[in-house]
Amino acid sequence: MKLTLTTLPDIPLVQPGDDLVEILWRALAKARIRLRHGDILALASKIVSKAEGRLVHLSQVIPSEPAQELARKSEKDPRLVELILRESREVLRVRPGAIIVEHRLGFVCANAGIDHSNVAPPPDAPAHLSSEEWVLLLPENPSASAARLRKGLEQRSGAQLGVLIVDSHGRAWRIGTVGNCIGLSGLPAIVDERGWKDLFGYELRVTVVGVADELAAAASLLMGQAAEATPAVHIRGFPYPLCEGNFSDLLRPKEQDLFR
Amino acid sequence: MKLTLTTLPDIPLVQPGDDLVEILWRALAKARIRLRHGDILALASKIVSKAEGRLVHLSQVIPSEPAQELARKSEKDPRLVELILRESREVLRVRPGAIIVEHRLGFVCANAGIDHSNVAPPPDAPAHLSSEEWVLLLPENPSASAARLRKGLEQRSGAQLGVLIVDSHGRAWRIGTVGNCIGLSGLPAIVDERGWKDLFGYELRVTVVGVADELAAAASLLMGQAAEATPAVHIRGFPYPLCEGNFSDLLRPKEQDLFR
Repeated sequence: MKLTLTTLPDIPLVQPGDDLVEILWRALAKARIRLRHGDILALASKIVSKAEGRLVHLSQVIPSEPAQELARKSEKDPRLVELILRESREVLRVRPGAIIVEHRLGFVCANAGIDHSNVAPPPDAPAHLSSEEWVLLLPENPSASAARLRKGLEQRSGAQLGVLIVDSHGRAWRIGTVGNCIGLSGLPAIVDERGWKDLFGYELRVTVVGVADELAAAASLLMGQAAEATPAVHIRGFPYPLCEGNFSDLLRPKEQDLFR
Repeated sequence: MKLTLTTLPDIPLVQPGDDLVEILWRALAKARIRLRHGDILALASKIVSKAEGRLVHLSQVIPSEPAQELARKSEKDPRLVELILRESREVLRVRPGAIIVEHRLGFVCANAGIDHSNVAPPPDAPAHLSSEEWVLLLPENPSASAARLRKGLEQRSGAQLGVLIVDSHGRAWRIGTVGNCIGLSGLPAIVDERGWKDLFGYELRVTVVGVADELAAAASLLMGQAAEATPAVHIRGFPYPLCEGNFSDLLRPKEQDLFR
């Protein structure tokens, strides 16, 4: 078995309204990759957000009273905190520099995934808006975005594909972010191996595997965080059959979570 | 950039005392892989444990009073619970079926990583011991094991290599296990990108990346859990320079952990 991940070269800086299918199609051609049945494209959430115009200028945000209170505790900009609250269902923990929330999309992450790095002003930004106060929200509905991109790429290629949206998350207990899946289409989120037999015929027990997160972590390794960022990765050799896929399979219900 | 992961074929069932360097060397030859500078081998913790004789028969374990108490709460075999306690520094949470601990090696996992599946009796096992009561502890010191294996493979190949020991862990908040690094030699555990500039010259903030865990997740995808288990994966194209590496970089100090 072989799993190959390849970064797509020369992806331009994405602007609101850009056609990501067209951008990816050109980058695939440049990388001389012809999409085949079973291939998967992993995309950094950032380029999906940018294409979908999820930029907000902090000057446009009026912080509520709770946001101002939380801003004091977290030592963050109250306007940014207001956006974090709007993007969240629940605040789990607060410390200076980080607000850990359950995002409205159901997963737990810091600062509702709102990003302040690699955020350029949109081309039509009014000149009086400070260029350093643009922030980027996560896509409105990453799995719907993944489904749209998948459909576009499947139509062009004729191949059955998967699309995975990746965001970097911190974790309980361990240092360092890892790539996690925040939306998908066309591949399984988890694989449930309960009931399978092991090498000696015993039933396997705790064997629900978070395959979409494992794949997101792999792709994230190649995406980088800094100037050499490469936001799209082609994956060949995913060792499970493609299927429609359901992102929410990855979300542990609150009442079953020992660490909330 | 390209990252390629390849399973090594025909790894035999490993027995206590087996020479893993020799086993891996033969499997690499069979896969027609010639080790190059920068290559990494990821190994399932299971084969390292087996080679190091970390099998225990439950009949040899006498449960303490605390183990018996915890066995009632967790609905587990008191002898297994005794082993879990011996392998742990602290019990974090208990529910029927799982005891979440800080392992003596410093990471948080369920049941101290003690495994009951794919555990065959050792060849010299006395016949009166029930073959279903063998369990497998994690390696005594996975990073030391990784360093030994690395040295052996570097001597044979002449190439500078990395070795990564992988175990599947459950997580807070999300469903499904993912491969995590529990020991390494020759590659960085984390990459600290704080201070790097992003595409627009802003300093990146939260950018300590758990690269060894991301790589472990990638390798784990190919390792499988069941009958077709492939416990060794060759990795080429890791996008960071090799270095001595320090596993404990991945461990969040308890007092800095908001979820303990």
